[in-house]
Amino acid sequence: MEKRILGLDPGLAILGFGLISCTQNQDKPLENSVNMLDYGVITTSSKTEMGQRLCTIYDDLHTVIEELQPDLVSIEKLFFYRMGNTILIAQARGVIMLVLAQCRVPIVEFTPAQVKLALTGYGNADKKEVQEAVARELDLEDIPKPDDAADGLALALTAWYQL
Amino acid sequence: MEKRILGLDPGLAILGFGLISCTQNQDKPLENSVNMLDYGVITTSSKTEMGQRLCTIYDDLHTVIEELQPDLVSIEKLFFYRMGNTILIAQARGVIMLVLAQCRVPIVEFTPAQVKLALTGYGNADKKEVQEAVARELDLEDIPKPDDAADGLALALTAWYQL
Repeated sequence: MEKRILGLDPGLAILGFGLISCTQNQDKPLENSVNMLDYGVITTSSKTEMGQRLCTIYDDLHTVIEELQPDLVSIEKLFFYRMGNTILIAQARGVIMLVLAQCRVPIVEFTPAQVKLALTGYGNADKKEVQEAVARELDLEDIPKPDDAADGLALALTAWYQL
Repeated sequence: MEKRILGLDPGLAILGFGLISCTQNQDKPLENSVNMLDYGVITTSSKTEMGQRLCTIYDDLHTVIEELQPDLVSIEKLFFYRMGNTILIAQARGVIMLVLAQCRVPIVEFTPAQVKLALTGYGNADKKEVQEAVARELDLEDIPKPDDAADGLALALTAWYQL
């Protein structure tokens, strides 16, 4: 059975996304496979006022979901790790959660530490190690750019490992 | 010239709103007047999942804006005053800001201290003093209930004082 998993790295200035397709065969687990289908970012300018930025995220994410047709979305849980920006990011994440609910896509949520643990085997891995694991796991020649898109793929892979 | 100002007290479980109508006559400032037109709350249950709660806020606030036709919205600025809930409230506030931008309503933002100062003359006033000021200013026999609706009216009045 094929499953399309979309990973989302929430943000106001940059929202990263990555789509993978994975097959699971419970009788023949060695034949399970995963492929990268797409990745990218939704961006908004800090020169634009907040409401308009949230409208862009709302419209663009609706388009992404309609085009990519994910069966499951894996999204990063938000913590107070960037104090000054946390409220702004949380406001953007509220709009993201709204769009996912409007599109009736099931979601799973992971902390940054859970993603690091799933991809590298330890929860304190640095950004580069996680990105290299993404490229290795998905057989990519280069690390996807920008970082936010690679983080989106990392979130999608984390969900796949836990299926 | 008559102006309709809608005050919004953002929240996930309870979003309070209050609508006032005010007239301004720059030649005859003593004839300026303000009236309460409506107030109420949008509520969501903590037993409902986050995405669905955000959908309710999105749909109900669109309805409120369409029905009340405000010229201006006055909304509370969010601070880290309720740590545990701040991210949840910020997510709801993101959806609120989205709806206001989609409806193209101009907004002004005030901190809780600015509202207290505007209504009572000092920034450390307690909740009850602010609510009594709302009732007095709007010639209401009773303090509007629930508190969140009274806070919505207080935000609308704060915007009016600054016009």
